[in-house]
Amino acid sequence: MGRITRKESHAQTRERLIQTAHRLFLSDGYNATSLDKVATEAGFSKGAVYSNFSTKHELGLAVLDVIHQERALSLTRAVEGVETVEGRIDAFAAWAEANIGDVGWTALEVEFATSTRRVPGVSQQLASRRRELTAAVAELIEQQATELGLTLPAPAEEAAVQLLSLGIGLGVQRAFDPDLSVASLVDLLRSLLEGADRA
Amino acid sequence: MGRITRKESHAQTRERLIQTAHRLFLSDGYNATSLDKVATEAGFSKGAVYSNFSTKHELGLAVLDVIHQERALSLTRAVEGVETVEGRIDAFAAWAEANIGDVGWTALEVEFATSTRRVPGVSQQLASRRRELTAAVAELIEQQATELGLTLPAPAEEAAVQLLSLGIGLGVQRAFDPDLSVASLVDLLRSLLEGADRA
Repeated sequence: MGRITRKESHAQTRERLIQTAHRLFLSDGYNATSLDKVATEAGFSKGAVYSNFSTKHELGLAVLDVIHQERALSLTRAVEGVETVEGRIDAFAAWAEANIGDVGWTALEVEFATSTRRVPGVSQQLASRRRELTAAVAELIEQQATELGLTLPAPAEEAAVQLLSLGIGLGVQRAFDPDLSVASLVDLLRSLLEGADRA
Repeated sequence: MGRITRKESHAQTRERLIQTAHRLFLSDGYNATSLDKVATEAGFSKGAVYSNFSTKHELGLAVLDVIHQERALSLTRAVEGVETVEGRIDAFAAWAEANIGDVGWTALEVEFATSTRRVPGVSQQLASRRRELTAAVAELIEQQATELGLTLPAPAEEAAVQLLSLGIGLGVQRAFDPDLSVASLVDLLRSLLEGADRA
């Protein structure tokens, strides 16, 4: 392996800063973690942080993107390869039980959204991520329907808004009340898939 | 009117502190508002605050209680006296459009839950309020069913968890993306009432 280029080095620094911030934001909270602390823990200078992220909000959004990608991947993996509708609903239920309201994750999302609500531009960034996430969930629903040979009773986009919103609402409540069941989310998915026609 | 008793005076002070905190928490945020600021703005000494609320969390919970009571009352008023199922769904849709994701309210709820998550005892307080709120929504649903002569397809408690959670999830997202429609919440209520049998 030859020496890495300046561009590769920059990408590695960025990657490492996001990993460190991810860990600190989850353990200590978003507001309690300074950019300086991230730089020190990652073993870089403040300059290295600022050449990658001009504000903490940028780093926060980058961490949220990583979290969303990870959770989407874990959900996709949980349901793929399962042959029956009931089997996929069970796989989804197990995923939801482990992931919805996972305290660190949920608290970071809402802490970030709340504490940046007066920062110009951040709401728009969160809004565009919400739309991307909804579109990804809609695509996953459509993919499930195709694989299972089902025709959905309503547009996948509507179902995605409903499932995602119910999941967020349950997550917010489960963060302080872990006894709250995810059954209502599983029921919603079941009613959606069972309302579908066999193609 | 005679002189007010010591007990009445204490209750009036408490009431005024809650009103002032309510206003400041919504305008400036929960974390940005100190107990001292609440005392000054309400025209009381710090001692008056502490004789009513031993911590800011207690005052925060009291403000959340007032907000929940107000919103529950406004929802009850919005739907009462409307004769038909479709009319009540429309009334609920109008209420939801005006109230779900109302930025100050939603942000205060999530900011409070997030920033107190490591404070011993507060999660339990929020959990018991969640159960009370769910029970109140279930009661409202049952009352609607009785008045409209419907038999619900599932226990009102399950419907309440689903409606409340979907409402919270939409609220969190509408706080940064007001363009997100409340239609999915209205659709859920419609499917619940239309799935009901005429008694």
